[in-house]
Amino acid sequence: MSSVNTRIERASADIVLGLGRLGVATVHEAQGRKGLLASHLRPIYAGARIAGTAVTVAVPPGDNWMLHVAMEQLQDGDMLVVAPTSPCIDGYFGDLLATSAMARGCRGLVIEAGVRDVRELQSMQFPVWSKAVFAQGTVKKTLGTVNLPITCGDTFIRPGDVVVADDDGICVVPREDAAAVLTEGNAREMREESVRARLAKGELGLDVYDMRERLAREGLTYL
Amino acid sequence: MSSVNTRIERASADIVLGLGRLGVATVHEAQGRKGLLASHLRPIYAGARIAGTAVTVAVPPGDNWMLHVAMEQLQDGDMLVVAPTSPCIDGYFGDLLATSAMARGCRGLVIEAGVRDVRELQSMQFPVWSKAVFAQGTVKKTLGTVNLPITCGDTFIRPGDVVVADDDGICVVPREDAAAVLTEGNAREMREESVRARLAKGELGLDVYDMRERLAREGLTYL
Amino acid sequence: MSSVNTRIERASADIVLGLGRLGVATVHEAQGRKGLLASHLRPIYAGARIAGTAVTVAVPPGDNWMLHVAMEQLQDGDMLVVAPTSPCIDGYFGDLLATSAMARGCRGLVIEAGVRDVRELQSMQFPVWSKAVFAQGTVKKTLGTVNLPITCGDTFIRPGDVVVADDDGICVVPREDAAAVLTEGNAREMREESVRARLAKGELGLDVYDMRERLAREGLTYL
Amino acid sequence: MSSVNTRIERASADIVLGLGRLGVATVHEAQGRKGLLASHLRPIYAGARIAGTAVTVAVPPGDNWMLHVAMEQLQDGDMLVVAPTSPCIDGYFGDLLATSAMARGCRGLVIEAGVRDVRELQSMQFPVWSKAVFAQGTVKKTLGTVNLPITCGDTFIRPGDVVVADDDGICVVPREDAAAVLTEGNAREMREESVRARLAKGELGLDVYDMRERLAREGLTYL
Amino acid sequence: MSSVNTRIERASADIVLGLGRLGVATVHEAQGRKGLLASHLRPIYAGARIAGTAVTVAVPPGDNWMLHVAMEQLQDGDMLVVAPTSPCIDGYFGDLLATSAMARGCRGLVIEAGVRDVRELQSMQFPVWSKAVFAQGTVKKTLGTVNLPITCGDTFIRPGDVVVADDDGICVVPREDAAAVLTEGNAREMREESVRARLAKGELGLDVYDMRERLAREGLTYL
Amino acid sequence: MSSVNTRIERASADIVLGLGRLGVATVHEAQGRKGLLASHLRPIYAGARIAGTAVTVAVPPGDNWMLHVAMEQLQDGDMLVVAPTSPCIDGYFGDLLATSAMARGCRGLVIEAGVRDVRELQSMQFPVWSKAVFAQGTVKKTLGTVNLPITCGDTFIRPGDVVVADDDGICVVPREDAAAVLTEGNAREMREESVRARLAKGELGLDVYDMRERLAREGLTYL
Repeated sequence: MSSVNTRIERASADIVLGLGRLGVATVHEAQGRKGLLASHLRPIYAGARIAGTAVTVAVPPGDNWMLHVAMEQLQDGDMLVVAPTSPCIDGYFGDLLATSAMARGCRGLVIEAGVRDVRELQSMQFPVWSKAVFAQGTVKKTLGTVNLPITCGDTFIRPGDVVVADDDGICVVPREDAAAVLTEGNAREMREESVRARLAKGELGLDVYDMRERLAREGLTYL
Repeated sequence: MSSVNTRIERASADIVLGLGRLGVATVHEAQGRKGLLASHLRPIYAGARIAGTAVTVAVPPGDNWMLHVAMEQLQDGDMLVVAPTSPCIDGYFGDLLATSAMARGCRGLVIEAGVRDVRELQSMQFPVWSKAVFAQGTVKKTLGTVNLPITCGDTFIRPGDVVVADDDGICVVPREDAAAVLTEGNAREMREESVRARLAKGELGLDVYDMRERLAREGLTYL
Repeated sequence: MSSVNTRIERASADIVLGLGRLGVATVHEAQGRKGLLASHLRPIYAGARIAGTAVTVAVPPGDNWMLHVAMEQLQDGDMLVVAPTSPCIDGYFGDLLATSAMARGCRGLVIEAGVRDVRELQSMQFPVWSKAVFAQGTVKKTLGTVNLPITCGDTFIRPGDVVVADDDGICVVPREDAAAVLTEGNAREMREESVRARLAKGELGLDVYDMRERLAREGLTYL
Repeated sequence: MSSVNTRIERASADIVLGLGRLGVATVHEAQGRKGLLASHLRPIYAGARIAGTAVTVAVPPGDNWMLHVAMEQLQDGDMLVVAPTSPCIDGYFGDLLATSAMARGCRGLVIEAGVRDVRELQSMQFPVWSKAVFAQGTVKKTLGTVNLPITCGDTFIRPGDVVVADDDGICVVPREDAAAVLTEGNAREMREESVRARLAKGELGLDVYDMRERLAREGLTYL
Repeated sequence: MSSVNTRIERASADIVLGLGRLGVATVHEAQGRKGLLASHLRPIYAGARIAGTAVTVAVPPGDNWMLHVAMEQLQDGDMLVVAPTSPCIDGYFGDLLATSAMARGCRGLVIEAGVRDVRELQSMQFPVWSKAVFAQGTVKKTLGTVNLPITCGDTFIRPGDVVVADDDGICVVPREDAAAVLTEGNAREMREESVRARLAKGELGLDVYDMRERLAREGLTYL
Repeated sequence: MSSVNTRIERASADIVLGLGRLGVATVHEAQGRKGLLASHLRPIYAGARIAGTAVTVAVPPGDNWMLHVAMEQLQDGDMLVVAPTSPCIDGYFGDLLATSAMARGCRGLVIEAGVRDVRELQSMQFPVWSKAVFAQGTVKKTLGTVNLPITCGDTFIRPGDVVVADDDGICVVPREDAAAVLTEGNAREMREESVRARLAKGELGLDVYDMRERLAREGLTYL
């Protein structure tokens, strides 16, 4: 029951960086409007935009012991993804664990629970997306799992998948799809760039996207 | 059913500017504690204080087609006010629509739904008050209405009404009342200025407002 | 029923300052994981870390008259702690009351309700932890109490108790326990400092805290 | 500000009865998927299905004085529709007010706030749709309005409009549209009856509604 | 820290019965609109109306060990009142614990957490007021307290206090006040009886309570 | 993208029936405290206890077209499990679809969205567990999937898995584990039966489970 998977396959580092540069909204569109985590997971400070490979952790309510176990599994470019086995907003993670995670090359944390020491975490520039900020301490008594698939933010996540996160939220990309999503995302970004220039000059989307005829056909009337 | 009202009456620009300067709390008090939108609509970044004339849009859930239609109706000094016809937190609006809206002179957006690209929106200084930040994309399939009255933030809003918004939230002023509310708001601000000076020196509101006798009459006792 | 207790016992100023320096997470741990207020009370701006002695106020829904009464009871180093007698998110407190409170030496406000003028409050650096930001005005018609015990953030608070608040939330320390909590908190901070240094160098908590054997005994397996 | 409109126009009694018989889901569809109140308004007991003409009341938070004023305006076949001017879940209404309302011919209550004495209300068979069940008492100090338009359940309601309510929620029909909606609702009910018979025999909606070709055209594939 | 108070003082059985007969709304009014627990605590089935003396239990999140300890402290006429030390909706209590509690004479349960086996609990007629219905199991690893004061439903409750509960919610009466509240509650009930009779005949509260003149003085106008 | 898997493997009918008899709480415990769906999914009426094999449906927000497609995939003993691809509380399902589903042998519905016609559904004894009751109608325009894995109630569910549901909520059992969980559940039920008898006679769990020594060792003290 309580096991740690030490041999997971990770998406390639280059592709992860590329997805992080694109950001959540573009990646989400590029993979066909899929993979978003629920909107109740919010960043503890604004401005971070990162991607990493998921190290997944299932923790009992009010017990952060497995986070210490997970630290050893972290590699450069990883992202911690944590979900409790029962709804809980306790502060599982603070500045000491962040110090340890950063020393292992971890880029950030997504947690379906609470976090604390948020002022210190911002000073350290260790970004966190969480369900709550709450100082309530946890114990170290009961086991969970590391690097087995979990559900976090109402979304299914496997270890090694790519997790992209910024001020818009979080998006997960299965590692098999990552290369294709990056290609489509880059193409999309380029297309948007030229549209943006036209819109900035005052052209209307109605014309840029050639929508007028279809609107009329659907029955739109102007009074 | 799906219509665009192209001839709406807007509140006068001078009055709109004056109300924007006063801010939400003062305008709300000046019109008799009315017109606030529900508190679940929050700014995506702190520090903006604006007012504009409402261009109202009703959109189907998960469909932002009518926002493209609405762009054409925007004039300098307008504010977009958007509500879905069924509860929805999808990200209807992002940096491309903001680029287009700014090019038309639009000052900001109030939306009873989600928004995305919030980092870019902050860079562009295009303020948004929304129910959620969520990257979930939308389609362009079904029609709605532009510039018919809508309910947004539990409040009835007509096109052309004045919408004031800042870090405290959003307040709507019917265009017929706007001049009177501005006059009363300015007077109120002046009165508050002199009270503020007395309080800053350490005088008590109990004395400034002459409350002691009435408190005693109501039965207040000191132990 | 409607009374003001003018003679409360306050925790000593030195100890209050010491607890404020430690912050909420450390104080909470140091007193045995107790005393946190509910996580729905959030700061209106980031970065404040303070402690003060509680002046408690019970207010009727939508009526802030007792806040004017409470102003007179404030002393240097106090913290206002306010709860309505029925759930309410109206904006009980704004820049005028903050001006008055600061003139009396008050360090901040914790309120189980709404607050307004938040932009001005941030400029004044008057920190507030509230349930909502809402401009909805209040009246001055009905009495409540000042400096009787109240429940705020689901937690029992007596006048004179120490209230510590920062970005992580709020923690209350009974004044009788304050000295002991400060001693334990300082010791804890020192212990954490040496752990932090080891973790920053890449040592694992598994080794620093000597957890490996106990984990194996509980049945943890590595795949 | 505080006024009672004593001369409102009510929808005709026959039409109201007909709409009540159809129920909320059918009426909502028959008027083009419009008019539903928000789903947080729930019945205090199951099984009621009614319609009535709205007598609208705006009440201050925690103050039910205007409900006493509203009693005098009730006529046979009316429905009370109540909204506070600021969010509030106090128990504005209990068995005494229900006794009075029933004596006036009132059919039920929709309230964007709390209600109490729910066991007694069920015994009396006086149906209520509310935001909360809460015994918190109210005072009688501040005025509001009776029979001016209000927003309740995020929906705009005018006095005299038809309010239909059952276990599915609440739907409002503007009195001008009531006759047309009834005609369309009756037609719809008849159409549904024949479809229901076919489905009960095991026919599939795919065939009854002739959907297979359109699904294939949209790209549906069977594995 | 982890202690059981075995010698608590209980309110007298007669008075408890009397308060139970009056019900929550009347008791709440009779003690001056105080003592209600938060409205998120709801009955798992309709129709129960009881009162009992509180046996209070503080439990760790996800751990119901102390409920087994509490069973031994239950006496005839008691009511279990349970709160977790951190927010939790796990199912702490089911049909086995209810069997044990009923065998000890316990009348019901109020719990700021989850409950399960609700169908069986209804069959047994063991009433529960809870924050959630959730089958999530708990462990038996960590201690808490029995019969020390707790906060439950945002309200401070001491062991031995009277807890009244029905479909309207829950109200606590300090045992020192119980006799006086019963007297006032009985008087109130009698007064209401005669008012009810007049209202049922069609008299208006405006006349029964003699409100017309005061309404006019406050500025009420009829259109 | 939009596909229907017509060849799914279903858990065996005998085992499904056995699990349904045990109910949610026992099944959840028997499979190691796993598989519960989130507690916001609640039954529309009390008293149903069923199990079935999942036919999973992913639907766009506000669009129930795929439910018509799913009807054809239903077999005797199935249970519909539906989740929208974006949060939505519209009423996707009503009495017509229930008529069709019952004709195909379907036992009930679990839906992460809204449902309507709940009075009729109760009359038909077609049980539903939903996030909301809401009459808001849906369209039939956009495709989704049938019988691909989905996340519903924050839990990962594959077609053919066993879904157990009663008044306590919903629990999913992977079809590979179903036989083992049934064996353990039956054993557990037998053990509980004998404990129940002892508790009903007044024995304490402290003795039945032999807890006193361990409690003392953990530091429990009696005052």
